Amino acid sequence: MPDCVFCKIVKKELPSSTFYEDEYSIAFLDIKQVSEGHSLVISKKHYENFFDVDPVVLQHIILSVQKVVQRLTKALGIAGMNISTNNGRPGQEVFHLHFHLIPRRAGDNLMMWPATSMSPEVLKIMAERIRKFF
Amino acid sequence: MPDCVFCKIVKKELPSSTFYEDEYSIAFLDIKQVSEGHSLVISKKHYENFFDVDPVVLQHIILSVQKVVQRLTKALGIAGMNISTNNGRPGQEVFHLHFHLIPRRAGDNLMMWPATSMSPEVLKIMAERIRKFF
Repeated sequence: MPDCVFCKIVKKELPSSTFYEDEYSIAFLDIKQVSEGHSLVISKKHYENFFDVDPVVLQHIILSVQKVVQRLTKALGIAGMNISTNNGRPGQEVFHLHFHLIPRRAGDNLMMWPATSMSPEVLKIMAERIRKFF
Repeated sequence: MPDCVFCKIVKKELPSSTFYEDEYSIAFLDIKQVSEGHSLVISKKHYENFFDVDPVVLQHIILSVQKVVQRLTKALGIAGMNISTNNGRPGQEVFHLHFHLIPRRAGDNLMMWPATSMSPEVLKIMAERIRKFF
């Protein structure tokens, strides 16, 4: 995609701190660090996100993510890693498939979003509604 | 694993709002909803997390995640979904591989964690250090 920042990074038309590359993916440090070592694994080929990525390609990319996660935790000497991908609106900023790898450290104060406990009855009704689409 | 809550849900020894099942995974509503329709896709077999899951099994599970995400967005009538998996300490609460699917809606005020912009020089030094592990 001509105007895609991540495509330009893949083609080395823009600088990046890429530290891993294979047939399907590259990994580099996010320029906006949520925590030290915050990295992205992105597809080499352009897909908008998790919704439209070719399933076979996704199967390759997820193995890249696993490899990078395993090595990155060693490199950083940590034992916790959040992996996340934000897709569509709202949430996604760059419309090129990418996984955030966010290193976790004790006392980093990164909390999951607040959640509300739901009664089994409410969940049952919600699940019934969703099941119709499966 | 005898004491694993998610293994018990897989075996139907504990109730859940499961709405999808295939050979490798099940999907159900999280009892603590970050947003309406917040679901989990978990492995049927017990793995601690993304670090130790068998790569071939992971390739199957990620396709389950994609299928569930595609249908769940339709079921909920939304266009945004965050997918995330928290692994190891800190961050992980249940030590059985699972992916959070968090539906996103305009104005939901779910923000990514605050990030700090880093200079290319700092990122370069960090990447050099990481590259030794690749």
